[in-house]
Amino acid sequence: MTAAHHEISAMHRAIALSALGLGRTSPNPPVGCVILDPTGRVVGEGHHERKGEPHAEVHALAAAGEHARGGTAVVTLEPCNHHGRTPPCHQALLDAGIARTVIALIDPTSRDEGGAARLRAAGVEVEVGVLADTARLVLGPWLDSLTTGRPHVTWLYRTNPDGNPVTPTASQVRALAAGMDVVVHADGSVVEARPNSHGAFSLPTPQPSRQPAELLAALYDGGTRTVLIATGPSIAARFIHNGLIDRTVAHLDPVGPSHRPSTRTQPLVPTGFVVDTVTREGHGVRVEAHRPTRQNHLPQ
Amino acid sequence: MTAAHHEISAMHRAIALSALGLGRTSPNPPVGCVILDPTGRVVGEGHHERKGEPHAEVHALAAAGEHARGGTAVVTLEPCNHHGRTPPCHQALLDAGIARTVIALIDPTSRDEGGAARLRAAGVEVEVGVLADTARLVLGPWLDSLTTGRPHVTWLYRTNPDGNPVTPTASQVRALAAGMDVVVHADGSVVEARPNSHGAFSLPTPQPSRQPAELLAALYDGGTRTVLIATGPSIAARFIHNGLIDRTVAHLDPVGPSHRPSTRTQPLVPTGFVVDTVTREGHGVRVEAHRPTRQNHLPQ
Repeated sequence: MTAAHHEISAMHRAIALSALGLGRTSPNPPVGCVILDPTGRVVGEGHHERKGEPHAEVHALAAAGEHARGGTAVVTLEPCNHHGRTPPCHQALLDAGIARTVIALIDPTSRDEGGAARLRAAGVEVEVGVLADTARLVLGPWLDSLTTGRPHVTWLYRTNPDGNPVTPTASQVRALAAGMDVVVHADGSVVEARPNSHGAFSLPTPQPSRQPAELLAALYDGGTRTVLIATGPSIAARFIHNGLIDRTVAHLDPVGPSHRPSTRTQPLVPTGFVVDTVTREGHGVRVEAHRPTRQNHLPQ
Repeated sequence: MTAAHHEISAMHRAIALSALGLGRTSPNPPVGCVILDPTGRVVGEGHHERKGEPHAEVHALAAAGEHARGGTAVVTLEPCNHHGRTPPCHQALLDAGIARTVIALIDPTSRDEGGAARLRAAGVEVEVGVLADTARLVLGPWLDSLTTGRPHVTWLYRTNPDGNPVTPTASQVRALAAGMDVVVHADGSVVEARPNSHGAFSLPTPQPSRQPAELLAALYDGGTRTVLIATGPSIAARFIHNGLIDRTVAHLDPVGPSHRPSTRTQPLVPTGFVVDTVTREGHGVRVEAHRPTRQNHLPQ
Protein backbone atom coordinates (compact mmCIF):
# COMPACT_ATOMS: atom_id res chain seq x y z
CA MET A 1 0.00 0.00 0.00
CA THR A 2 1.26 3.47 -0.79
CA ALA A 3 0.22 6.85 0.56
CA ALA A 4 -3.22 8.01 -0.52
CA HIS A 5 -3.89 11.42 -2.04
CA HIS A 6 -5.22 12.90 1.21
CA GLU A 7 -2.18 11.54 3.10
CA ILE A 8 0.14 13.35 0.66
CA SER A 9 -1.79 16.58 1.30
CA ALA A 10 -1.50 15.99 5.06
CA MET A 11 2.25 15.41 4.75
CA HIS A 12 2.67 18.70 2.86
CA ARG A 13 0.88 20.42 5.73
CA ALA A 14 2.95 18.54 8.36
CA ILE A 15 6.17 19.60 6.63
CA ALA A 16 5.05 23.24 6.53
CA LEU A 17 4.17 23.11 10.24
CA SER A 18 7.53 21.51 11.04
CA ALA A 19 9.29 24.63 9.72
CA LEU A 20 7.71 26.65 12.56
CA GLY A 21 10.17 24.90 14.87
CA LEU A 22 13.28 25.96 12.94
CA GLY A 23 15.67 27.83 15.23
CA ARG A 24 13.91 26.69 18.41
CA THR A 25 14.12 22.93 18.79
CA SER A 26 17.86 22.18 18.68
CA PRO A 27 19.38 19.82 19.53
CA ASN A 28 16.02 18.15 18.75
CA PRO A 29 14.78 18.08 15.16
CA PRO A 30 11.95 20.33 13.89
CA VAL A 31 9.05 17.90 13.29
CA GLY A 32 5.43 18.32 12.21
CA CYS A 33 2.46 15.97 12.55
CA VAL A 34 -1.12 15.77 11.23
CA ILE A 35 -3.73 13.32 12.55
CA LEU A 36 -6.46 11.99 10.23
CA ASP A 37 -9.57 10.25 11.50
CA PRO A 38 -10.61 6.89 9.98
CA THR A 39 -12.48 8.73 7.19
CA GLY A 40 -9.33 10.70 6.25
CA ARG A 41 -10.49 14.00 7.73
CA VAL A 42 -7.84 16.20 9.41
CA VAL A 43 -8.66 16.20 13.15
CA GLY A 44 -5.42 17.43 14.74
CA GLU A 45 -2.12 19.11 13.92
CA GLY A 46 1.02 19.90 15.84
CA HIS A 47 4.70 20.65 15.68
CA HIS A 48 7.62 20.45 18.07
CA GLU A 49 7.89 24.05 19.13
CA ARG A 50 10.79 24.16 21.56
CA LYS A 51 13.27 21.83 23.17
CA GLY A 52 11.85 20.38 26.39
CA GLU A 53 8.27 20.86 25.28
CA PRO A 54 6.03 18.10 23.84
CA HIS A 55 6.88 16.52 20.52
CA ALA A 56 4.77 17.11 17.41
CA GLU A 57 2.82 13.83 17.76
CA VAL A 58 1.77 14.65 21.34
CA HIS A 59 0.44 18.08 20.36
CA ALA A 60 -1.44 16.68 17.35
CA LEU A 61 -2.95 13.80 19.35
CA ALA A 62 -4.08 16.21 22.07
CA ALA A 63 -5.91 18.29 19.46
CA ALA A 64 -7.49 15.20 17.87
CA GLY A 65 -8.68 13.61 21.12
CA GLU A 66 -10.95 10.62 20.58
CA HIS A 67 -11.08 11.34 16.81
CA ALA A 68 -7.61 9.80 16.51
CA ARG A 69 -8.84 6.28 17.36
CA GLY A 70 -8.51 4.04 14.30
CA GLY A 71 -7.00 6.95 12.39
CA THR A 72 -3.69 7.79 10.71
CA ALA A 73 -0.71 9.77 12.01
CA VAL A 74 1.21 11.63 9.29
CA VAL A 75 4.60 12.70 10.65
CA THR A 76 7.73 14.15 9.03
CA LEU A 77 10.24 12.11 11.07
CA GLU A 78 10.01 8.63 12.57
CA PRO A 79 8.32 8.84 16.00
CA CYS A 80 10.89 8.64 18.77
CA ASN A 81 11.58 5.54 20.77
CA HIS A 82 13.30 6.84 23.86
CA HIS A 83 12.36 8.34 27.19
CA GLY A 84 13.82 11.80 27.35
CA ARG A 85 12.14 14.94 28.62
CA THR A 86 8.92 13.50 27.16
CA PRO A 87 7.62 9.88 26.90
CA PRO A 88 8.34 8.03 23.64
CA CYS A 89 6.02 9.11 20.84
CA HIS A 90 5.41 5.65 19.42
CA GLN A 91 3.76 4.81 22.75
CA ALA A 92 1.58 7.92 22.60
CA LEU A 93 0.40 6.88 19.12
CA LEU A 94 -0.43 3.38 20.35
CA ASP A 95 -2.26 4.73 23.41
CA ALA A 96 -4.38 6.95 21.14
CA GLY A 97 -5.41 3.98 19.01
CA ILE A 98 -3.67 5.09 15.80
CA ALA A 99 -4.06 2.33 13.16
CA ARG A 100 -1.69 3.65 10.49
CA THR A 101 1.40 5.87 10.48
CA VAL A 102 2.83 7.66 7.43
CA ILE A 103 6.45 8.81 7.84
CA ALA A 104 8.64 10.94 5.56
CA LEU A 105 12.12 10.23 6.99
CA ILE A 106 13.61 7.67 9.35
CA ASP A 107 15.35 9.06 12.45
CA PRO A 108 19.02 8.03 12.25
CA THR A 109 19.41 8.55 16.01
CA SER A 110 17.07 5.58 16.64
CA ARG A 111 19.63 2.82 16.99
CA ASP A 112 18.48 -0.80 17.00
CA GLU A 113 14.72 -0.94 17.01
CA GLY A 114 13.23 2.49 16.21
CA GLY A 115 9.74 3.88 16.59
CA ALA A 116 8.61 2.56 13.20
CA ALA A 117 9.59 -1.01 14.08
CA ARG A 118 7.88 -0.76 17.48
CA LEU A 119 4.68 0.48 15.81
CA ARG A 120 4.76 -2.35 13.26
CA ALA A 121 5.35 -4.90 16.02
CA ALA A 122 2.24 -3.54 17.76
CA GLY A 123 0.14 -4.07 14.62
CA VAL A 124 0.17 -0.53 13.24
CA GLU A 125 0.48 -0.20 9.46
CA VAL A 126 3.60 1.92 8.75
CA GLU A 127 4.49 3.66 5.49
CA VAL A 128 7.97 5.21 5.19
CA GLY A 129 9.52 7.60 2.63
CA VAL A 130 6.44 9.65 1.74
CA LEU A 131 7.60 13.09 0.44
CA ALA A 132 11.03 12.35 1.89
CA ASP A 133 12.80 14.91 -0.31
CA THR A 134 10.31 17.62 0.67
CA ALA A 135 10.67 16.83 4.38
CA ARG A 136 14.45 17.09 3.93
CA LEU A 137 14.00 20.76 2.93
CA VAL A 138 13.31 21.37 6.63
CA LEU A 139 15.13 18.49 8.34
CA GLY A 140 18.21 18.52 6.05
CA PRO A 141 20.40 20.82 8.19
CA TRP A 142 19.61 18.78 11.33
CA LEU A 143 20.31 15.49 9.51
CA ASP A 144 23.55 16.87 8.04
CA SER A 145 24.78 18.00 11.45
CA LEU A 146 24.38 14.44 12.79
CA THR A 147 26.98 13.15 10.36
CA THR A 148 29.36 16.12 10.29
CA GLY A 149 29.41 16.67 14.05
CA ARG A 150 29.16 20.43 13.54
CA PRO A 151 26.23 22.79 12.93
CA HIS A 152 24.92 23.41 9.43
CA VAL A 153 26.35 26.78 8.36
CA THR A 154 24.66 29.38 6.16
CA TRP A 155 26.62 32.37 4.93
CA LEU A 156 24.56 35.49 4.37
CA TYR A 157 26.36 37.94 2.19
CA ARG A 158 25.68 41.07 0.28
CA THR A 159 27.44 42.68 -2.65
CA ASN A 160 27.50 46.37 -3.55
CA PRO A 161 26.85 47.56 -7.14
CA ASP A 162 30.50 46.88 -8.06
CA GLY A 163 30.08 43.27 -6.99
CA ASN A 164 32.30 43.64 -3.91
CA PRO A 165 31.24 41.91 -0.67
CA VAL A 166 29.92 44.21 2.08
CA THR A 167 28.31 43.62 5.48
CA PRO A 168 24.61 42.58 5.21
CA THR A 169 21.90 44.97 6.38
CA ALA A 170 20.18 44.44 9.72
CA SER A 171 16.89 43.49 8.07
CA GLN A 172 18.62 40.93 5.83
CA VAL A 173 20.13 39.37 8.96
CA ARG A 174 16.83 39.47 10.86
CA ALA A 175 14.88 37.73 8.08
CA LEU A 176 17.27 34.75 7.98
CA ALA A 177 17.98 34.61 11.73
CA ALA A 178 14.31 33.67 12.38
CA GLY A 179 15.06 30.06 11.45
CA MET A 180 18.56 29.75 12.94
CA ASP A 181 19.93 28.69 16.32
CA VAL A 182 22.92 31.02 16.41
CA VAL A 183 24.16 34.07 14.49
CA VAL A 184 27.81 35.13 14.09
CA HIS A 185 27.60 38.90 13.64
CA ALA A 186 29.84 41.34 11.80
CA ASP A 187 31.73 42.26 14.98
CA GLY A 188 32.58 38.59 15.52
CA SER A 189 30.10 38.13 18.37
CA VAL A 190 28.26 34.80 18.58
CA VAL A 191 24.63 35.35 19.59
CA GLU A 192 21.71 33.01 20.10
CA ALA A 193 19.19 33.94 17.40
CA ARG A 194 16.12 33.10 19.46
CA PRO A 195 16.49 33.27 23.23
CA ASN A 196 15.40 29.88 24.52
CA SER A 197 13.31 30.01 27.66
CA HIS A 198 14.82 26.71 28.75
CA GLY A 199 18.40 27.92 28.44
CA ALA A 200 19.22 25.01 26.15
CA PHE A 201 22.39 26.45 24.68
CA SER A 202 25.70 26.85 26.39
CA LEU A 203 27.36 29.35 24.12
CA PRO A 204 31.13 29.62 24.07
CA THR A 205 32.60 32.98 24.99
CA PRO A 206 32.84 35.03 21.80
CA GLN A 207 36.41 34.75 20.53
CA PRO A 208 36.59 35.90 16.88
CA SER A 209 40.21 34.72 16.71
CA ARG A 210 39.20 31.33 17.59
CA GLN A 211 39.51 28.93 14.67
CA PRO A 212 36.20 28.44 12.78
CA ALA A 213 36.24 24.63 13.13
CA GLU A 214 36.92 24.93 16.86
CA LEU A 215 34.08 27.45 17.29
CA LEU A 216 31.63 25.21 15.42
CA ALA A 217 32.63 22.14 17.43
CA ALA A 218 32.05 24.03 20.68
CA LEU A 219 28.66 25.24 19.43
CA TYR A 220 27.67 21.70 18.42
CA ASP A 221 28.61 20.35 21.83
CA GLY A 222 26.38 23.04 23.36
CA GLY A 223 23.38 21.89 21.29
CA THR A 224 23.57 24.27 18.31
CA ARG A 225 22.58 22.69 14.97
CA THR A 226 22.27 25.73 12.64
CA VAL A 227 24.53 28.78 12.39
CA LEU A 228 24.16 31.95 10.33
CA ILE A 229 27.39 33.75 9.40
CA ALA A 230 26.31 37.37 8.94
CA THR A 231 29.74 38.97 8.92
CA GLY A 232 31.63 40.84 6.27
CA PRO A 233 33.86 38.89 3.89
CA SER A 234 37.00 38.63 6.03
CA ILE A 235 35.53 36.44 8.79
CA ALA A 236 33.35 34.52 6.33
CA ALA A 237 36.38 33.79 4.14
CA ARG A 238 37.94 31.82 7.00
CA PHE A 239 34.88 29.56 7.08
CA ILE A 240 34.82 29.24 3.28
CA HIS A 241 38.51 28.35 3.09
CA ASN A 242 38.02 25.62 5.65
CA GLY A 243 35.08 24.12 3.75
CA LEU A 244 32.68 24.99 6.57
CA ILE A 245 29.92 26.73 4.60
CA ASP A 246 26.95 24.57 3.54
CA ARG A 247 24.64 27.18 2.06
CA THR A 248 24.91 30.78 0.85
CA VAL A 249 22.27 33.47 0.62
CA ALA A 250 23.50 36.45 -1.40
CA HIS A 251 21.76 39.80 -1.72
CA LEU A 252 22.91 41.97 -4.63
CA ASP A 253 22.37 45.68 -4.20
CA PRO A 254 20.58 47.36 -7.13
CA VAL A 255 22.80 47.59 -10.22
CA GLY A 256 22.33 49.84 -13.27
CA PRO A 257 22.02 48.32 -16.73
CA SER A 258 25.64 48.95 -17.68
CA HIS A 259 28.75 49.33 -15.57
CA ARG A 260 32.39 48.39 -15.26
CA PRO A 261 32.84 46.47 -11.99
CA SER A 262 35.89 46.68 -9.79
CA THR A 263 38.04 43.62 -9.16
CA ARG A 264 36.31 41.14 -6.87
CA THR A 265 37.99 38.93 -4.32
CA GLN A 266 35.02 36.64 -3.75
CA PRO A 267 32.82 34.97 -6.36
CA LEU A 268 29.06 35.40 -6.00
CA VAL A 269 28.61 31.63 -5.66
CA PRO A 270 31.41 29.55 -4.05
CA THR A 271 33.17 27.04 -6.28
CA GLY A 272 31.22 23.80 -6.60
CA PHE A 273 28.00 25.19 -5.13
CA VAL A 274 24.68 24.71 -6.91
CA VAL A 275 22.25 27.64 -7.21
CA ASP A 276 18.70 26.91 -5.99
CA THR A 277 16.89 30.21 -6.51
CA VAL A 278 17.48 33.57 -8.23
CA THR A 279 14.76 36.09 -7.43
CA ARG A 280 14.03 39.79 -7.87
CA GLU A 281 13.83 41.45 -4.49
CA GLY A 282 12.70 45.05 -4.78
CA HIS A 283 15.40 46.62 -6.98
CA GLY A 284 18.02 44.00 -6.09
CA VAL A 285 18.44 40.26 -6.48
CA ARG A 286 18.66 37.35 -4.03
CA VAL A 287 20.66 34.22 -4.94
CA GLU A 288 20.59 31.04 -2.85
CA ALA A 289 23.05 28.19 -3.34
CA HIS A 290 24.12 25.05 -1.49
CA ARG A 291 27.07 22.72 -1.46
CA PRO A 292 25.91 19.39 -2.91
CA THR A 293 25.95 16.45 -0.51
CA ARG A 294 24.99 12.85 -1.09
CA GLN A 295 21.46 13.60 0.13
CA ASN A 296 21.01 16.41 -2.35
CA HIS A 297 22.07 14.16 -5.20
CA LEU A 298 19.50 11.47 -4.53
CA PRO A 299 17.11 11.12 -7.48
CA GLN A 300 13.69 12.71 -6.88
CA MET B 1 37.24 23.07 -24.40
CA THR B 2 34.92 23.61 -21.46
CA ALA B 3 34.22 26.71 -19.41
CA ALA B 4 37.05 27.81 -17.12
CA HIS B 5 36.60 28.50 -13.43
CA HIS B 6 36.49 32.28 -13.88
CA GLU B 7 33.94 31.90 -16.69
CA ILE B 8 31.65 29.91 -14.36
CA SER B 9 31.94 32.73 -11.80
CA ALA B 10 31.12 35.27 -14.50
CA MET B 11 28.08 33.23 -15.57
CA HIS B 12 26.80 33.17 -11.97
CA ARG B 13 27.09 36.93 -11.92
CA ALA B 14 25.45 37.29 -15.37
CA ILE B 15 22.51 35.14 -14.22
CA ALA B 16 22.08 37.24 -11.06
CA LEU B 17 22.13 40.44 -13.15
CA SER B 18 19.60 38.96 -15.59
CA ALA B 19 17.06 38.71 -12.75
CA LEU B 20 17.06 42.52 -12.47
CA GLY B 21 15.08 42.52 -15.71
CA LEU B 22 12.29 40.26 -14.42
CA GLY B 23 8.92 42.00 -14.81
CA ARG B 24 10.28 44.65 -17.17
CA THR B 25 11.53 43.08 -20.39
CA SER B 26 8.51 41.15 -21.72
CA PRO B 27 7.92 40.11 -24.39
CA ASN B 28 11.74 40.03 -24.53
CA PRO B 29 13.66 37.67 -22.22
CA PRO B 30 15.55 38.88 -19.12
CA VAL B 31 19.21 38.41 -20.05
CA GLY B 32 22.51 39.20 -18.31
CA CYS B 33 26.04 39.54 -19.73
CA VAL B 34 29.57 39.84 -18.35
CA ILE B 35 32.59 40.76 -20.46
CA LEU B 36 36.06 39.40 -19.58
CA ASP B 37 39.27 40.83 -21.02
CA PRO B 38 41.85 38.45 -22.55
CA THR B 39 43.38 37.88 -19.08
CA GLY B 40 39.99 36.82 -17.67
CA ARG B 41 39.38 40.00 -15.69
CA VAL B 42 35.79 41.32 -15.51
CA VAL B 43 35.70 44.58 -17.52
CA GLY B 44 32.00 45.10 -18.16
CA GLU B 45 28.57 43.95 -17.07
CA GLY B 46 25.03 44.56 -18.23
CA HIS B 47 21.48 43.33 -18.36
CA HIS B 48 18.45 43.94 -20.53
CA GLU B 49 16.56 46.37 -18.38
CA ARG B 50 13.42 47.17 -20.32
CA LYS B 51 11.79 46.35 -23.62
CA GLY B 52 12.96 48.75 -26.32
CA GLU B 53 16.20 49.53 -24.53
CA PRO B 54 19.61 48.00 -25.40
CA HIS B 55 20.17 44.29 -24.88
CA ALA B 56 22.48 42.97 -22.16
CA GLU B 57 25.45 42.48 -24.51
CA VAL B 58 25.31 46.08 -25.74
CA HIS B 59 25.34 47.47 -22.18
CA ALA B 60 28.21 45.21 -21.14
CA LEU B 61 30.29 46.01 -24.22
CA ALA B 62 29.75 49.75 -23.69
CA ALA B 63 31.11 49.42 -20.16
CA ALA B 64 34.07 47.32 -21.29
CA GLY B 65 35.08 49.61 -24.18
CA GLU B 66 38.42 48.65 -25.72
CA HIS B 67 39.07 46.11 -22.94
CA ALA B 68 36.64 43.76 -24.71
CA ARG B 69 38.97 43.24 -27.70
CA GLY B 70 40.22 39.66 -27.75
CA GLY B 71 38.11 38.92 -24.67
CA THR B 72 35.18 36.70 -23.74
CA ALA B 73 31.46 37.44 -23.58
CA VAL B 74 29.56 35.44 -20.96
CA VAL B 75 25.83 35.64 -21.64
CA THR B 76 22.81 33.81 -20.21
CA LEU B 77 20.96 33.45 -23.56
CA GLU B 78 22.24 33.07 -27.10
CA PRO B 79 22.93 36.54 -28.58
CA CYS B 80 20.13 37.58 -30.88
CA ASN B 81 20.33 37.42 -34.64
CA HIS B 82 17.61 39.77 -35.75
CA HIS B 83 17.16 43.47 -36.33
CA GLY B 84 14.42 44.66 -34.00
CA ARG B 85 14.41 47.80 -31.94
CA THR B 86 18.17 47.25 -31.53
CA PRO B 87 20.83 45.86 -33.95
CA PRO B 88 21.62 42.14 -33.65
CA CYS B 89 23.85 41.37 -30.68
CA HIS B 90 26.09 38.87 -32.44
CA GLN B 91 27.20 41.74 -34.70
CA ALA B 92 27.91 43.97 -31.70
CA LEU B 93 30.11 41.22 -30.23
CA LEU B 94 32.00 40.85 -33.52
CA ASP B 95 32.46 44.61 -33.84
CA ALA B 96 33.92 44.74 -30.34
CA GLY B 97 36.49 42.07 -31.20
CA ILE B 98 35.16 39.38 -28.84
CA ALA B 99 37.17 36.16 -29.37
CA ARG B 100 35.10 33.75 -27.29
CA THR B 101 31.46 33.56 -26.20
CA VAL B 102 30.11 31.44 -23.34
CA ILE B 103 26.33 30.86 -23.44
CA ALA B 104 24.01 29.20 -20.91
CA LEU B 105 20.89 28.61 -23.05
CA ILE B 106 20.10 28.65 -26.75
CA ASP B 107 17.35 31.04 -27.85
CA PRO B 108 14.53 28.92 -29.31
CA THR B 109 13.19 31.97 -31.18
CA SER B 110 16.31 31.97 -33.38
CA ARG B 111 15.08 29.87 -36.27
CA ASP B 112 17.56 28.61 -38.84
CA GLU B 113 20.97 30.09 -38.18
CA GLY B 114 21.08 31.70 -34.72
CA GLY B 115 23.54 34.09 -33.11
CA ALA B 116 25.79 31.24 -31.93
CA ALA B 117 26.15 29.84 -35.44
CA ARG B 118 26.86 33.31 -36.86
CA LEU B 119 29.56 33.89 -34.24
CA ARG B 120 31.18 30.50 -34.99
CA ALA B 121 31.08 31.23 -38.71
CA ALA B 122 32.94 34.46 -38.00
CA GLY B 123 35.69 32.59 -36.15
CA VAL B 124 34.54 33.18 -32.57
CA GLU B 125 34.92 30.25 -30.17
CA VAL B 126 31.46 29.45 -28.77
CA GLU B 127 30.65 27.37 -25.69
CA VAL B 128 26.98 26.47 -25.04
CA GLY B 129 25.19 24.97 -22.02
CA VAL B 130 27.29 26.49 -19.22
CA LEU B 131 25.15 26.62 -16.02
CA ALA B 132 22.08 26.06 -18.20
CA ASP B 133 19.95 24.84 -15.27
CA THR B 134 20.88 27.88 -13.19
CA ALA B 135 20.09 30.28 -16.05
CA ARG B 136 16.71 28.54 -16.39
CA LEU B 137 15.85 29.67 -12.84
CA VAL B 138 15.44 33.14 -14.37
CA LEU B 139 14.60 32.38 -18.01
CA GLY B 140 12.34 29.37 -17.31
CA PRO B 141 9.01 31.26 -17.23
CA TRP B 142 9.86 33.07 -20.48
CA LEU B 143 10.95 29.81 -22.15
CA ASP B 144 7.82 28.01 -20.91
CA SER B 145 5.55 30.73 -22.27
CA LEU B 146 7.05 30.25 -25.76
CA THR B 147 5.76 26.70 -25.91
CA THR B 148 2.46 27.10 -24.05
CA GLY B 149 1.40 30.30 -25.82
CA ARG B 150 0.23 31.77 -22.53
CA PRO B 151 2.01 33.59 -19.69
CA HIS B 152 3.69 31.65 -16.87
CA VAL B 153 1.28 31.84 -13.92
CA THR B 154 2.21 32.02 -10.23
CA TRP B 155 -0.47 31.69 -7.59
CA LEU B 156 0.24 33.54 -4.37
CA TYR B 157 -1.88 32.28 -1.56
CA ARG B 158 -2.12 32.52 2.15
CA THR B 159 -3.71 30.27 4.75
CA ASN B 160 -5.03 31.30 8.15
CA PRO B 161 -4.18 29.32 11.33
CA ASP B 162 -6.96 26.82 10.55
CA GLY B 163 -5.38 26.12 7.19
CA ASN B 164 -8.15 27.81 5.21
CA PRO B 165 -7.21 29.96 2.20
CA VAL B 166 -7.53 33.73 2.67
CA THR B 167 -6.58 36.76 0.57
CA PRO B 168 -2.82 37.53 0.70
CA THR B 169 -1.60 40.67 2.48
CA ALA B 170 -0.58 43.74 0.48
CA SER B 171 3.09 43.31 1.40
CA GLN B 172 3.05 39.65 0.32
CA VAL B 173 1.66 40.75 -3.06
CA ARG B 174 4.15 43.62 -3.36
CA ALA B 175 7.17 41.38 -2.71
CA LEU B 176 6.26 38.95 -5.49
CA ALA B 177 4.90 41.54 -7.93
CA ALA B 178 8.39 43.07 -8.28
CA GLY B 179 9.37 40.33 -10.73
CA MET B 180 6.06 39.95 -12.58
CA ASP B 181 4.55 41.56 -15.67
CA VAL B 182 0.93 41.54 -14.55
CA VAL B 183 -0.99 40.98 -11.30
CA VAL B 184 -4.57 39.70 -11.02
CA HIS B 185 -5.81 41.22 -7.76
CA ALA B 186 -8.39 40.03 -5.25
CA ASP B 187 -11.12 42.22 -6.81
CA GLY B 188 -10.51 40.56 -10.18
CA SER B 189 -8.72 43.57 -11.66
CA VAL B 190 -5.79 42.91 -14.00
CA VAL B 191 -3.00 45.39 -13.37
CA GLU B 192 0.44 45.88 -14.87
CA ALA B 193 2.88 45.20 -12.04
CA ARG B 194 5.52 47.64 -13.23
CA PRO B 195 4.33 50.54 -15.37
CA ASN B 196 6.37 50.39 -18.55
CA SER B 197 7.52 53.75 -19.83
CA HIS B 198 7.20 52.48 -23.39
CA GLY B 199 3.60 51.36 -22.98
CA ALA B 200 4.52 47.88 -24.13
CA PHE B 201 1.44 46.09 -22.85
CA SER B 202 -2.02 46.31 -24.21
CA LEU B 203 -4.03 45.03 -21.31
CA PRO B 204 -7.50 43.62 -21.89
CA THR B 205 -10.33 45.36 -20.09
CA PRO B 206 -10.68 43.75 -16.66
CA GLN B 207 -13.44 41.15 -16.88
CA PRO B 208 -13.24 38.75 -13.92
CA SER B 209 -16.00 36.62 -15.50
CA ARG B 210 -13.93 36.12 -18.47
CA GLN B 211 -12.64 32.56 -18.74
CA PRO B 212 -9.09 32.16 -17.32
CA ALA B 213 -7.68 30.62 -20.52
CA GLU B 214 -9.19 33.42 -22.59
CA LEU B 215 -7.77 36.08 -20.25
CA LEU B 216 -4.29 34.54 -20.40
CA ALA B 217 -4.38 34.25 -24.19
CA ALA B 218 -5.30 37.94 -24.48
CA LEU B 219 -2.50 38.88 -22.07
CA TYR B 220 0.02 36.81 -24.04
CA ASP B 221 -1.00 38.49 -27.30
CA GLY B 222 -0.42 41.85 -25.58
CA GLY B 223 3.14 40.87 -24.65
CA THR B 224 2.67 39.57 -21.09
CA ARG B 225 4.88 36.61 -20.17
CA THR B 226 4.42 36.32 -16.37
CA VAL B 227 1.25 36.68 -14.30
CA LEU B 228 0.74 36.71 -10.55
CA ILE B 229 -2.65 35.52 -9.28
CA ALA B 230 -3.04 37.34 -5.94
CA THR B 231 -6.74 36.69 -5.43
CA GLY B 232 -8.60 34.75 -2.80
CA PRO B 233 -9.31 31.06 -3.42
CA SER B 234 -12.47 31.38 -5.54
CA ILE B 235 -10.86 33.09 -8.57
CA ALA B 236 -7.60 31.11 -8.15
CA ALA B 237 -9.56 27.82 -8.10
CA ARG B 238 -10.77 28.51 -11.65
CA PHE B 239 -7.15 28.74 -12.82
CA ILE B 240 -6.17 25.63 -10.84
CA HIS B 241 -9.06 23.58 -12.21
CA ASN B 242 -8.08 24.50 -15.74
CA GLY B 243 -4.44 23.46 -15.17
CA LEU B 244 -3.27 27.05 -15.64
CA ILE B 245 -1.08 27.43 -12.53
CA ASP B 246 2.66 26.75 -12.97
CA ARG B 247 3.98 27.76 -9.57
CA THR B 248 2.56 28.40 -6.10
CA VAL B 249 3.89 30.56 -3.28
CA ALA B 250 2.03 29.88 -0.03
CA HIS B 251 2.30 31.91 3.15
CA LEU B 252 1.03 30.19 6.31
CA ASP B 253 -0.05 32.50 9.09
CA PRO B 254 1.49 31.73 12.51
CA VAL B 255 0.10 28.52 14.02
CA GLY B 256 0.27 27.40 17.65
CA PRO B 257 1.90 24.07 18.56
CA SER B 258 -1.37 22.18 18.84
CA HIS B 259 -4.76 22.77 17.26
CA ARG B 260 -7.69 21.12 15.55
CA PRO B 261 -8.02 22.59 12.04
CA SER B 262 -11.29 23.22 10.28
CA THR B 263 -12.12 21.39 7.05
CA ARG B 264 -10.09 22.71 4.15
CA THR B 265 -11.24 23.00 0.55
CA GLN B 266 -7.81 23.54 -0.96
CA PRO B 267 -4.63 21.57 -0.27
CA LEU B 268 -1.52 23.57 0.65
CA VAL B 269 0.31 22.23 -2.42
CA PRO B 270 -1.70 21.39 -5.58
CA THR B 271 -1.79 17.73 -6.63
CA GLY B 272 1.31 16.73 -8.57
CA PHE B 273 3.30 19.83 -7.67
CA VAL B 274 6.84 19.53 -6.28
CA VAL B 275 7.91 21.66 -3.30
CA ASP B 276 11.09 23.69 -3.83
CA THR B 277 11.50 25.56 -0.54
CA VAL B 278 10.00 25.57 2.96
CA THR B 279 11.24 28.48 5.06
CA ARG B 280 10.51 30.19 8.37
CA GLU B 281 9.31 33.71 7.74
CA GLY B 282 8.92 35.62 10.97
CA HIS B 283 6.38 33.57 12.92
CA GLY B 284 4.91 31.98 9.79
CA VAL B 285 6.11 29.73 7.00
CA ARG B 286 6.53 30.18 3.25
CA VAL B 287 6.21 27.19 0.88
CA GLU B 288 7.09 27.36 -2.82
CA ALA B 289 6.15 24.64 -5.30
CA HIS B 290 6.07 24.17 -9.06
CA ARG B 291 4.35 21.90 -11.53
CA PRO B 292 7.02 19.66 -13.06
CA THR B 293 7.67 20.13 -16.77
CA ARG B 294 10.09 18.36 -19.04
CA GLN B 295 12.67 21.11 -18.42
CA ASN B 296 12.49 20.67 -14.66
CA HIS B 297 13.08 16.95 -14.99
CA LEU B 298 16.31 17.26 -16.93
CA PRO B 299 19.22 15.77 -14.99
CA GLN B 300 21.47 18.36 -13.37
